[in-house]
Amino acid sequence: MDKEKKGVVIWFTGLPSSGKTTLAIHLRKKLENNREKVYLLDGDQLRSGLNSDLGFLEKDRSENIRRAAEVAKLLADSGLIVLATFISPFEMDRVKACNIIGRDRFFLVFVDCELEVCELRDVKGLYKKARLGEIKNFTGIDGPYEKPLHPDIIINTAKLSLEECVSQLEIDILSQFKV
Amino acid sequence: MDKEKKGVVIWFTGLPSSGKTTLAIHLRKKLENNREKVYLLDGDQLRSGLNSDLGFLEKDRSENIRRAAEVAKLLADSGLIVLATFISPFEMDRVKACNIIGRDRFFLVFVDCELEVCELRDVKGLYKKARLGEIKNFTGIDGPYEKPLHPDIIINTAKLSLEECVSQLEIDILSQFKV
Repeated sequence: MDKEKKGVVIWFTGLPSSGKTTLAIHLRKKLENNREKVYLLDGDQLRSGLNSDLGFLEKDRSENIRRAAEVAKLLADSGLIVLATFISPFEMDRVKACNIIGRDRFFLVFVDCELEVCELRDVKGLYKKARLGEIKNFTGIDGPYEKPLHPDIIINTAKLSLEECVSQLEIDILSQFKV
Repeated sequence: MDKEKKGVVIWFTGLPSSGKTTLAIHLRKKLENNREKVYLLDGDQLRSGLNSDLGFLEKDRSENIRRAAEVAKLLADSGLIVLATFISPFEMDRVKACNIIGRDRFFLVFVDCELEVCELRDVKGLYKKARLGEIKNFTGIDGPYEKPLHPDIIINTAKLSLEECVSQLEIDILSQFKV
């Protein structure tokens, strides 16, 4: 294990379909081209495994984020750059995640995108179901999303192109962590 | 990330103070000398973080092992050799762990050591507390330990020296996984 290399966690928060995972996938490609070791820890992936026992009520969402942060920490401990993509709608949970991982290696990306644009994208068709009432507590519709008070970076995926978003992220991350 | 390299999980099961973590620490050193990337996932470590909400009743122990297996899987997905050290006293939980991780990359090490020897070692002083009734459901005393039915390797840490145990492990693992 490369002991000298300190892992970091880049945490993406934002509405469903705001572009968190898309950004992370493209950022991973860029970082890997720079020979960085990257791990994409995705909300859906975790919900299908480790967190399959959790639902979408507020207390389950909190536990979902707590476990995600603990796992991100373990991965970062092994020297990886962890790209963690979680809606993580509550400020308190994001602060807890930061405390678990450690402020000096936690980088919060607010993937900002207007609800209307997210709903138009509706990558997984879930906004539609939420509007029809088939899904309850859906973030942005009948579930709240608290904008981060102190993000390290805000990326507006409605206003910038994907390429611009990823470049901006890469520059910011490289300058902050010198990865 | 080294995509060609497939991660594996070496799962150590056995009584408290049987030598699981000691073996794993020394095996890690050997593997790292061979330039392997290794991650030690320890029961105590997980219980102080991710699994801090769980106790020691049978259902909590099962959930402890389920989450441990999910995390070991994530770490192995990133190409690491994971050394997972968990008492994991129940056969059913170990089989579940194997199913979560995948049979082709799960290697079960039964750290076999007579209860009397473990109790004499009593690394953390917990056997003493269990005998005094200060700890309940302690594996080996008033909590059951089911010996694995199909371990990939059995290491008796009472009969072999530490060096012999680690060498045997290394040979077996290298031959099975060609890591």
